[in-house]
Amino acid sequence: MYKLNAKKSNSRRGELTTRKGVIQTPCFMPIATKGAIKTITADEVRELSPDVILGNTYHLMLRPGSDEIKDLGGLHRFMDWEKPILTDSGGFQVFSLAKIRKITAEGVKFNSHISGKEFFMSPEDSIKIQMNIGSDIMMVLDECVELPAERSYLEKSVDLTTVWAKRCKDFLLNQPINQSTNKPLLFGIVQGGLESDLRKKSAKDLVEIGFDGYAIGGLSVGESEQEMCSTLDFTCPELPENRPRYLMGVGYPHQIVEAVKRGIDMFDCVIPTREARHGRLYLWNDLFLESDRNILDLGEFSKEFYNTINIKNEEYKFDLKPINSNSKFPELQKYSKAYLRHLFVTEDPLAQRLSTLNNLEFYLGLMEKIRKDIQ
Amino acid sequence: MYKLNAKKSNSRRGELTTRKGVIQTPCFMPIATKGAIKTITADEVRELSPDVILGNTYHLMLRPGSDEIKDLGGLHRFMDWEKPILTDSGGFQVFSLAKIRKITAEGVKFNSHISGKEFFMSPEDSIKIQMNIGSDIMMVLDECVELPAERSYLEKSVDLTTVWAKRCKDFLLNQPINQSTNKPLLFGIVQGGLESDLRKKSAKDLVEIGFDGYAIGGLSVGESEQEMCSTLDFTCPELPENRPRYLMGVGYPHQIVEAVKRGIDMFDCVIPTREARHGRLYLWNDLFLESDRNILDLGEFSKEFYNTINIKNEEYKFDLKPINSNSKFPELQKYSKAYLRHLFVTEDPLAQRLSTLNNLEFYLGLMEKIRKDIQ
Repeated sequence: MYKLNAKKSNSRRGELTTRKGVIQTPCFMPIATKGAIKTITADEVRELSPDVILGNTYHLMLRPGSDEIKDLGGLHRFMDWEKPILTDSGGFQVFSLAKIRKITAEGVKFNSHISGKEFFMSPEDSIKIQMNIGSDIMMVLDECVELPAERSYLEKSVDLTTVWAKRCKDFLLNQPINQSTNKPLLFGIVQGGLESDLRKKSAKDLVEIGFDGYAIGGLSVGESEQEMCSTLDFTCPELPENRPRYLMGVGYPHQIVEAVKRGIDMFDCVIPTREARHGRLYLWNDLFLESDRNILDLGEFSKEFYNTINIKNEEYKFDLKPINSNSKFPELQKYSKAYLRHLFVTEDPLAQRLSTLNNLEFYLGLMEKIRKDIQ
Repeated sequence: MYKLNAKKSNSRRGELTTRKGVIQTPCFMPIATKGAIKTITADEVRELSPDVILGNTYHLMLRPGSDEIKDLGGLHRFMDWEKPILTDSGGFQVFSLAKIRKITAEGVKFNSHISGKEFFMSPEDSIKIQMNIGSDIMMVLDECVELPAERSYLEKSVDLTTVWAKRCKDFLLNQPINQSTNKPLLFGIVQGGLESDLRKKSAKDLVEIGFDGYAIGGLSVGESEQEMCSTLDFTCPELPENRPRYLMGVGYPHQIVEAVKRGIDMFDCVIPTREARHGRLYLWNDLFLESDRNILDLGEFSKEFYNTINIKNEEYKFDLKPINSNSKFPELQKYSKAYLRHLFVTEDPLAQRLSTLNNLEFYLGLMEKIRKDIQ
């Protein structure tokens, strides 16, 4: 299912085949948290052209609900998106948003942060919900430990995550799969905090069980960038070459570049869309666009080749230059920075939409450049 | 400038020529309150294809500001709209939103409802601001009296409005007009509450001064529909046949039909866009679309040929039918009612955008049908 087409040092250029199409990697997955990439239509997403997007199981199980989304024909139909969808297990948001009642070997009991309603989710439940959503790439349920944590807690947690991962795989294997839709992929999630031996153990145990891909979870949760890079340095070599590697929830452009250099293939992050909604725009410098330099050979990627601006700043009040003259979106070429600022100041939702298009185009363009430069 | 092409009883089919193009009447003007029709792009407005849109002087003089919008090249350039723009005088919102300090013969002193900053606006100032905006059809500054009001106050107010109207006209006449852009049009505003003799006097005085068109103001401010219709019945005959008539701030579809029957040519209203943002959709019944019946001959227009739904209602949770299968917008054809409801429930701004497109398409379609049926 994963074909490694080219390598440049540790950077990998590959293709991941799913039942809904091929994903060119390294890739960035825009986040459709609640069944939509906020403020934009599916046609606009198609124009942006990601190979895969991400849906959040926790949010979708609350609204419209797990059985409800099945009755609605699954997420693809519901949101008008025919290409691959990856879903997380729901675990991360259970641990970050919900009020947790209890974690046991059996699963996790929690209350909805919206209605207060109590839910119980076992590893098997997570897979069942992801099946109801119609996910093409599922994640196993894992425990996300907040750092810093006691070594002894981390140890127990890694073991629990492994046991849960196995249960997810077994449950999926036993599902009658519709022949016409084929089997979705299932990824394991390596945990272990910043501990080299625990990460290696987690990876080894998961590889032994065998998954279609391996995610690295529990990063970008407050550790330093140096710590994140080291963790990738000692974890990636433990993962098989012939499976995709997904760094969950990362990150800023320079972090993505650093992770690609260490062998990561897949990314998701709220940064481009969330920051867009707050008026922070990612823009390439002309220098970069004119340059033929390989993005993976740059020392300081961030400083030289792109910058971010806060469009709400006073300095853009009379800036009649286009929002982004290099954009493929006519509205970003035609509207001025001054107008976008005015839309933010007057709280017109159009502001968030224009910024979202801009930032996703930037992130997806970054991945395209990375793929080209590995090749 | 106004050419009356056809009449059906008192209904008028005409063409109003402005420096930015011809407006087919009867027409509905979507409202770009703060320099944008909320949630949608200028390209989408072009797709909706109104001949003219409306900008609010009060909002634009506060943000980005009167001199500022001039420096930004005017509203057309700022918001990427090349067809006609009508601006109100600012008066209505001064009276409804701002904290008014004092009305004198000279003008009105008020405080911004946003910053609290004090402004003074004379009739001449209003025209000057509308010129800075780059308006193609300007309105004179008038006093909007809240009803019910003392007869003596109404009398004084009508006289003040006439004096102010004259001052607006004189001021505009004395402006050096750039030959390449030509002169904008200026409309007088008939006031007088629900008093037949005052409305007639106001109309007569304004016609004597002579304007490019005549608006009827001070309606849709709490009076009954019967009262509104009577006011039109005794006011319209006082207005010249060869000038357009604009009923300000009206209204619901059936009110527009009733006003057209009484000789009104132009409308603006926040209803389609504001209600859209709250989840109320206007939808044609199939019966109407299949019918050849003349819209002006219907007894009860509203009940038979369209309905409104609150898409947020539970009943749409599993409604997989298109939002609007008759829409020209692919997103309204492809997305289900259930999905639009979900977008409202999860507070995705895309919900307001889809609804706005739907309702403006309905209103503009209504006007197209009206024009066809008069012809």
